[in-house]
Amino acid sequence: MHSLQCRRVIPFGKLSLSLHAPRNALRFVHKPAFTFESYKSLHRDPKYAKLSEQDVQVFKSIIGKDGSLIDGLDKSTDPADLDAFNIDWMNKYRGKTQLALKPKTTQQVSEILKYCNQKKLAVVPQGGNTGLVGGSVPVFDEIVLNLGLMNQIHTFDEISGVITLDSGVILENADNFLAEKGYMFPLDLGAKGSCQVGGCAATAAGGLRLLRYGSLHGSILGMEAVLPDGTILDNLVTLRKDNTGLDIKQLFIGSEGYLGVITKLSVICPKRPSSTNVAFFGVPSYENVLKAFSETRSHLTEILSAFELMDNTSQTLVDKYSGTQRPLEDEHPFYVLVETQGSNKEHDEQKITALVEDLLEKEIISDGVLAQDESQLRVLWERREGITECLAKAGSGVYKYDVSLPLPVLYDLVNDTKKRLIEFNLLDDTPEHPVIDVVGFGHMGDGNLHLNIAVRQFDKRVEKCLEPWVYEWVSRHRGSISAEHGLGLLKKPFVGYSKSKEMIHLMKTLKNVFDPNGIMLPYKYV
Amino acid sequence: MHSLQCRRVIPFGKLSLSLHAPRNALRFVHKPAFTFESYKSLHRDPKYAKLSEQDVQVFKSIIGKDGSLIDGLDKSTDPADLDAFNIDWMNKYRGKTQLALKPKTTQQVSEILKYCNQKKLAVVPQGGNTGLVGGSVPVFDEIVLNLGLMNQIHTFDEISGVITLDSGVILENADNFLAEKGYMFPLDLGAKGSCQVGGCAATAAGGLRLLRYGSLHGSILGMEAVLPDGTILDNLVTLRKDNTGLDIKQLFIGSEGYLGVITKLSVICPKRPSSTNVAFFGVPSYENVLKAFSETRSHLTEILSAFELMDNTSQTLVDKYSGTQRPLEDEHPFYVLVETQGSNKEHDEQKITALVEDLLEKEIISDGVLAQDESQLRVLWERREGITECLAKAGSGVYKYDVSLPLPVLYDLVNDTKKRLIEFNLLDDTPEHPVIDVVGFGHMGDGNLHLNIAVRQFDKRVEKCLEPWVYEWVSRHRGSISAEHGLGLLKKPFVGYSKSKEMIHLMKTLKNVFDPNGIMLPYKYV
Ligand SMILES: Cc1cc2nc3c(=O)[nH]c(=O)nc-3n(C[C@H](O)[C@H](O)[C@H](O)COP(=O)(O)OP(=O)(O)OC[C@H]3O[C@@H](n4cnc5c(N)ncnc54)[C@H](O)[C@@H]3O)c2cc1C
Ligand SMILES: Cc1cc2nc3c(=O)[nH]c(=O)nc-3n(C[C@H](O)[C@H](O)[C@H](O)COP(=O)(O)OP(=O)(O)OC[C@H]3O[C@@H](n4cnc5c(N)ncnc54)[C@H](O)[C@@H]3O)c2cc1C
Repeated sequence: MHSLQCRRVIPFGKLSLSLHAPRNALRFVHKPAFTFESYKSLHRDPKYAKLSEQDVQVFKSIIGKDGSLIDGLDKSTDPADLDAFNIDWMNKYRGKTQLALKPKTTQQVSEILKYCNQKKLAVVPQGGNTGLVGGSVPVFDEIVLNLGLMNQIHTFDEISGVITLDSGVILENADNFLAEKGYMFPLDLGAKGSCQVGGCAATAAGGLRLLRYGSLHGSILGMEAVLPDGTILDNLVTLRKDNTGLDIKQLFIGSEGYLGVITKLSVICPKRPSSTNVAFFGVPSYENVLKAFSETRSHLTEILSAFELMDNTSQTLVDKYSGTQRPLEDEHPFYVLVETQGSNKEHDEQKITALVEDLLEKEIISDGVLAQDESQLRVLWERREGITECLAKAGSGVYKYDVSLPLPVLYDLVNDTKKRLIEFNLLDDTPEHPVIDVVGFGHMGDGNLHLNIAVRQFDKRVEKCLEPWVYEWVSRHRGSISAEHGLGLLKKPFVGYSKSKEMIHLMKTLKNVFDPNGIMLPYKYV
Repeated sequence: MHSLQCRRVIPFGKLSLSLHAPRNALRFVHKPAFTFESYKSLHRDPKYAKLSEQDVQVFKSIIGKDGSLIDGLDKSTDPADLDAFNIDWMNKYRGKTQLALKPKTTQQVSEILKYCNQKKLAVVPQGGNTGLVGGSVPVFDEIVLNLGLMNQIHTFDEISGVITLDSGVILENADNFLAEKGYMFPLDLGAKGSCQVGGCAATAAGGLRLLRYGSLHGSILGMEAVLPDGTILDNLVTLRKDNTGLDIKQLFIGSEGYLGVITKLSVICPKRPSSTNVAFFGVPSYENVLKAFSETRSHLTEILSAFELMDNTSQTLVDKYSGTQRPLEDEHPFYVLVETQGSNKEHDEQKITALVEDLLEKEIISDGVLAQDESQLRVLWERREGITECLAKAGSGVYKYDVSLPLPVLYDLVNDTKKRLIEFNLLDDTPEHPVIDVVGFGHMGDGNLHLNIAVRQFDKRVEKCLEPWVYEWVSRHRGSISAEHGLGLLKKPFVGYSKSKEMIHLMKTLKNVFDPNGIMLPYKYV
């Protein structure tokens, strides 16, 4: 009976499309306020030079004909052409750059930075601009150095699985290339259609399958990067083991552009699994979610590739805004998506079926389905991956917190946040209340919770109610205030909740070594 | 037929015991020459202070009663008590320290370093002293800071698999502790009975199963370290994702003590596999070894945990010196050990049997056995893990090169080295020739070759013939001159073959930030 219930065919809903529209094609209908207007405490640092037409001429001579340069000083340029470089994915942050540079070679990046360093022109590197913490757009008039035209795949070794590629290659393109060779990129995330491999390295992105394929600190084997003074650091080895001195590339992974620009990567890629299974469970309590996780790890060990948590609130939103149908008939307080990836279909199905039976038997889960084919599998994933977009549609803004927490207390943060917002009379069904609802979901297998607060409009009272309270809560429970999205502008003031003052001091000292003029990523990070 | 042949019971030999004798218990019968005598170009840097009795008093007051201090200035101390701290595992390097300190707490490490920094007393951190590049023992009179008494396991989280422990915990002890909880340490290597987890982190050790469990850069989640000025960097997070600023701990992984002392680690550990299989193949050519690797990855994908190469010369040595019996009847030019680790015995056996059948069918291998039980499995592993010790018995010394190379050319280095030594009339069967033989083996799945030259006696002519020739060869073929053992004293002069001058310059700049007085690890690394 149980296994029949589990294997029932999912009623098909429309797939909600698509997180992956190329960002640059968009025009901004409602532009956000300038960041420096909403962050009143920020002031342009007068140590930075203002861009002159003479500077633009120099950049033109560097980039030549093959790169691209969008020049806001030139009156004939449509100012809207710079919007895509000034405004971030969330439509929350907005800078006021007058110049976006899109070099095509490392040499050009080097010459650009060297010049900026000499002239003290501030720079913000930009990948796919999908970062969620305001890192990739200027705060004031920093020059945008966009890597989008550095998008070549250079080599791929079919025996070792090592790829070398430009940092501007879009993650999905890299993965599609590898798919043809029977390999996969060791990282996947909702923004894969827009984000770049270099942006992923710069943010040490974790994504959906870190649990299985590990951190970029392990899979990036080599790197080419350019320091702010124009020095090219060539460390583009393709070897799995290379213990010859300080592993400096590691500092760049997760540095968000603070130390320099990543221009190329070599990455070791796993074989593409020939068999993928997805199960979707309804779970009666968070306590049972924890039990389900433990059982899942025991049953699926080496083939477990994702364990994703979604609360009922998140799924109600997906119902409402995605047009996809619920995979399970009844409502449940929690939902879990489990994915396996392996090399033997039969073995994997046996393992996941045994898991499902065990979970039902022990009454750890209340209901469940197993995807029967590729399209059902995608429908189930859409229930998880669609949350971010549905949240965006629910109101006119979302406060997002991406935190790591010890598993036993992970969901308490959602409950406590909701309680607090109600207490402060900020959350209710009526339009006077700014907050629509509090949603929790995330890569639970990695201890990673996305706490999202959907609002009818951004409201300082909500922000004051949440910050630094959320960070204090996380710090008190020995979590991290930024699991994977990084610090950017958003979390710069709060890094002290996750790092000691000695650590922060050392980071600043290192900054001074790499970038004594402080031209890279001003006003952000630490 | 084939599969029967493969499943035949291995004739049992004695297990060669044991790589893992606790090093400190040994007395040195034949002590090597002092390093400063064999490396004539090295001179004690007069910027370092000489140890005084007053210094020793200060250290005594810091360490108090619970730590331990071996004081060579004190005439009542047996000078041989310091041998274990002055002489390395290979019995090749010998320093002349007058003081070994064994602190018990991070606070003590901090006070020791702070004092040394003020007084400009040079320091060499020491773990299990099993490093193979002369890093862990002094060159002159550097104080040895041995971590052996910092050996507590602090916490283990059964849900996440994260362990926090002192850096002085012996790798095998950590793994035994985890075994009881159903987990394993994500690193294993021949020296596990002596080497410490902190030493492994300091050398970014790769070991036997990197292929499967990834690099320590991925599995070390948190670290506590002490800077040369005594500052304690507390970054001992136990979270899988924590993107809050520069990932400074990464710089310490593989830094060999150059930047400071690692005192604690938190490490994410995989579930212990319930099923392990080992196969041992005889292969007719290196070309076929490459084919076997490709097939093996395809068949075993997620359960493949080791792919080890051994040449016939290495196995002839093991025959002679280990007392174990050959697992295969005939001789073959190459041998390969394949290991799987998984959660389902039946599934894993099906997969590995299918592989073996396929390899025999396609005549990629000439013969093979599959271990039928735990003790056969250990016998097969001894054929690989015993090589280092048998080499040591073969003559009175071994020149060891631990390199990474692109797989297609990996074994060419062994052939070319042998040719060159014969050409230079240094290798032959007669006692006048210094070289006994050239042996190649290693973690081939990671592109890692151990090139070993066994000698009747260490001989400057051999060294001159090999160096820098080996490094040039490796560099020319885009390999790494140190895959996993690090630089230490041995490879310091050669780092330029693997790293650019910009990289080396930056390493030295960073050294200056972390250790402006240069008290840590003098004369070594870069
Ligand atoms: C729908 C959606 C889902 C997401 N899911 C995840 C997820 O699961 N896991 C996760 O970790 N993140 C996730 N993110 C966040 C984001 O996609 C990742 O951080 C991604 O890695 C950013 O890549 P990007 O190329 O867009 O970088 P950008 O947003 O352009 O830049 C991010 C930061 O890195 C710097 N930078 C970019 N490129 C370079 C370079 N070449 N050299 C130096 N610095 C550079 C920028 O200055 C900026 O500070 C998600 C975002 C969205 C919109
Ligand atoms: C039989 C045998 C097999 C081996 N197999 C492998 C293998 O497969 N893979 C591999 O990578 N290595 C291997 N090695 C090399 C060696 O075991 C590893 O490098 C090991 O990690 C060294 O650990 P240790 O505690 O003995 O460190 P040590 O030898 O004591 O020290 C190594 C270096 O690290 C520094 N150091 C030690 N502890 C600390 C600390 N707490 N903080 C800062 N610096 C420190 C020392 O100063 C020294 O420079 C093998 C060695 C032997 C003898």
